[in-house]
Amino acid sequence: MEFTHFNESGKAKMVEVGDKDNTRREAVAKGTIKMNPLTLKMIVEGQMKKGDVLSVAQVAGIMGAKKTSEIIPMCHNIFITGADIKFEIDEANNAIHIEARAKTIGKTGIEMEALSAVSITALTIYDMCKAVDKDMVIENIRLVKKTGGKSGEYMRKGEL
Amino acid sequence: MEFTHFNESGKAKMVEVGDKDNTRREAVAKGTIKMNPLTLKMIVEGQMKKGDVLSVAQVAGIMGAKKTSEIIPMCHNIFITGADIKFEIDEANNAIHIEARAKTIGKTGIEMEALSAVSITALTIYDMCKAVDKDMVIENIRLVKKTGGKSGEYMRKGEL
Amino acid sequence: MEFTHFNESGKAKMVEVGDKDNTRREAVAKGTIKMNPLTLKMIVEGQMKKGDVLSVAQVAGIMGAKKTSEIIPMCHNIFITGADIKFEIDEANNAIHIEARAKTIGKTGIEMEALSAVSITALTIYDMCKAVDKDMVIENIRLVKKTGGKSGEYMRKGEL
Amino acid sequence: MEFTHFNESGKAKMVEVGDKDNTRREAVAKGTIKMNPLTLKMIVEGQMKKGDVLSVAQVAGIMGAKKTSEIIPMCHNIFITGADIKFEIDEANNAIHIEARAKTIGKTGIEMEALSAVSITALTIYDMCKAVDKDMVIENIRLVKKTGGKSGEYMRKGEL
Amino acid sequence: MEFTHFNESGKAKMVEVGDKDNTRREAVAKGTIKMNPLTLKMIVEGQMKKGDVLSVAQVAGIMGAKKTSEIIPMCHNIFITGADIKFEIDEANNAIHIEARAKTIGKTGIEMEALSAVSITALTIYDMCKAVDKDMVIENIRLVKKTGGKSGEYMRKGEL
Amino acid sequence: MEFTHFNESGKAKMVEVGDKDNTRREAVAKGTIKMNPLTLKMIVEGQMKKGDVLSVAQVAGIMGAKKTSEIIPMCHNIFITGADIKFEIDEANNAIHIEARAKTIGKTGIEMEALSAVSITALTIYDMCKAVDKDMVIENIRLVKKTGGKSGEYMRKGEL
Repeated sequence: MEFTHFNESGKAKMVEVGDKDNTRREAVAKGTIKMNPLTLKMIVEGQMKKGDVLSVAQVAGIMGAKKTSEIIPMCHNIFITGADIKFEIDEANNAIHIEARAKTIGKTGIEMEALSAVSITALTIYDMCKAVDKDMVIENIRLVKKTGGKSGEYMRKGEL
Repeated sequence: MEFTHFNESGKAKMVEVGDKDNTRREAVAKGTIKMNPLTLKMIVEGQMKKGDVLSVAQVAGIMGAKKTSEIIPMCHNIFITGADIKFEIDEANNAIHIEARAKTIGKTGIEMEALSAVSITALTIYDMCKAVDKDMVIENIRLVKKTGGKSGEYMRKGEL
Repeated sequence: MEFTHFNESGKAKMVEVGDKDNTRREAVAKGTIKMNPLTLKMIVEGQMKKGDVLSVAQVAGIMGAKKTSEIIPMCHNIFITGADIKFEIDEANNAIHIEARAKTIGKTGIEMEALSAVSITALTIYDMCKAVDKDMVIENIRLVKKTGGKSGEYMRKGEL
Repeated sequence: MEFTHFNESGKAKMVEVGDKDNTRREAVAKGTIKMNPLTLKMIVEGQMKKGDVLSVAQVAGIMGAKKTSEIIPMCHNIFITGADIKFEIDEANNAIHIEARAKTIGKTGIEMEALSAVSITALTIYDMCKAVDKDMVIENIRLVKKTGGKSGEYMRKGEL
Repeated sequence: MEFTHFNESGKAKMVEVGDKDNTRREAVAKGTIKMNPLTLKMIVEGQMKKGDVLSVAQVAGIMGAKKTSEIIPMCHNIFITGADIKFEIDEANNAIHIEARAKTIGKTGIEMEALSAVSITALTIYDMCKAVDKDMVIENIRLVKKTGGKSGEYMRKGEL
Repeated sequence: MEFTHFNESGKAKMVEVGDKDNTRREAVAKGTIKMNPLTLKMIVEGQMKKGDVLSVAQVAGIMGAKKTSEIIPMCHNIFITGADIKFEIDEANNAIHIEARAKTIGKTGIEMEALSAVSITALTIYDMCKAVDKDMVIENIRLVKKTGGKSGEYMRKGEL
């Protein structure tokens, strides 16, 4: 077992994937942002009326998925066939759960795109709400599922 | 108390900061990435010999700070006077703690730059190590400290 | 009267503005996108329920203002102090009117940021609706007002 | 008939195109920038001697086509196989007509790339000439033709 | 023999490559940065202990390869399957030799990506060391080898 | 004498410049691209008639100056007040000499912007001409002059 992103001098490289098959690949990542009850209330009410924080965060997350190979140094610039983001309001825990799903057909996977999308979505929620709540915390950003490619399916234990 | 990032139609806007003073501002953000013990061992050993994951993540984080206004929709494109990232290896918890510190002199704060730097640093560690450990989780991304500007100093409770 | 963007060899240059004063500057630009009545009806209904085309276009326009110096070759990379976009639904003409307003404090104006914001907002509406209406036309993109700087105020004739 | 860019919660998504065929696709878009007679005269003379506004605008338009998926939130990052821009000087109407043509081989069309190229070309002409003419207006940006893909050929009525 | 990057009006275009075969392509480029003996000594010592200039330059070079189609106006935005950079310390000549190698599978070559990677790697070394040595010179940036595509193999004379 | 771009752990940082004065700063960089006599002849003739390689390279170089802080990891994102590029055709040596000049008013210098502009200009000439001449070599990229800032004026020996 070894890191694949280093050359024989121990310096970082972009791993060669030219010999890999073009397969359908999908990745799902999740994360959570926790906040004060009032902040959550303002977000939920804004969705119904005006000032929809989550719409802005959704756009940021999808654009962020497309930025992945620019912000993660050794990521390949892959063709994303589709991307979507979903929110779950969790009033019991004063939290919003974020799920990003991205797909590609190609030689390398799309895990980082899904993880970047979740991170940038959460950061945008922070930015939009920080005037009222600087205590928000971004938690539990993780890969939940990955399909396609030689290494096959990954399914995080304990997730549905 | 209300969100500042919306106009009177309830649509997102970039808040006007032209009337604010140019003051020195600093922000410190932190976060943690948890992993398998073996992954942490490989990162620590790589630092000493070759294949330094954290050097790549450091560069990504600092470049990420400069990307903030491109990835967070309503962020101002501010002049960053300096940025730095520090790592703390936490073998007891199989984790690496990340601290990003960024400064500016200007009309609006630099919290998002510090938070983006932490997030992108953590995502890069994930990317560099995902061939050996897909279970890593990014945790507890938070603003720790903020100085300068009209709203004054923010210091997260419970942080030193 | 001559173009300022060329050097003595007739090649394009970025005009030197170092000797100009730092003044408050504002620009307002407008434009219109015309469409089928059904498309407009779908956009208006989407705003009330779900699927808000204009929210996405608004985010794109504001992010587009920040991209101006990347897409317009001789534009300076200025600090935008604020930016906003407004829509006017014009059912009589099956059109949406777009107004972008941007401000800066600096040595050169912000006209191109306002014009880029209007253009990218309109292009995003086209993209979001093109599955139902490829006949949409973007019309009348123009600078309406400009204040600040040595050349003083510009006010387009015939605009309120 | 419905917008395709929204998920079941009414939030914007990047449409999944993984099941579409890879086909050759081409798009042609056009637009016009109107100006004072003197401005047009200066552009035409500059082309012959020195200070060629349209060469700069051409480069901006082609680079702009490549920026499309960065500036239009839900656009896919497609591989552009070629792009070109043509100008028609219309002295009778004090206008320059812009035509952008772009091609791809892939799963989704290239209309937005052609439309972005026209828009950014026109904005660059505005920027290069605004010191002598702030009254210029960008008009009639439209898709003229589209071939390839499941939805087949689109040809705007009344265009040759 | 003629330049391929111009249309019939003599204006730059992105060459259409849609009819070309998808083939494996590789490019190798090299260059050299010369410096004061003390600067080279500091870089070499930094590699062993701390402050590794070449690790930062390596990351910059690989990210630079991915930026190629953004910085070179008529370059296609191709999928890079892999990229690596190697350094050779040349104490006899107070120089560091840089070699970049990049691969793709596609319709057009990857020479510019390799050349951009070498250039940006060298510029980053300059930036990291300029506080101690402003006299550094970047020399001899050249394509060394190119394989794949209709024009076949290119091998620079006099290179091993 | 030590490198300034590393923190106390030996990891790269963006140097803090908040305490520096805002001064006028200028940098001039130069470089050369050598080629076959026929290539040079084609470039020179293209300038007079159509197909102007150097106009495209000029636009690329100025846009490249603005990209500097995106491609050089530890560079600050400074406000460029102006930038220009000049060419000297050297038929005796089958070469084109490139000079880039950039200015800023701020807390840190503009040397990297001038050097990036020269490099990207030269790479663009390579790209535009590589169909007829893959043997071109980029030579002698160097800082020629720097004014402003605490470290004062730098003037390369042997340059006029």
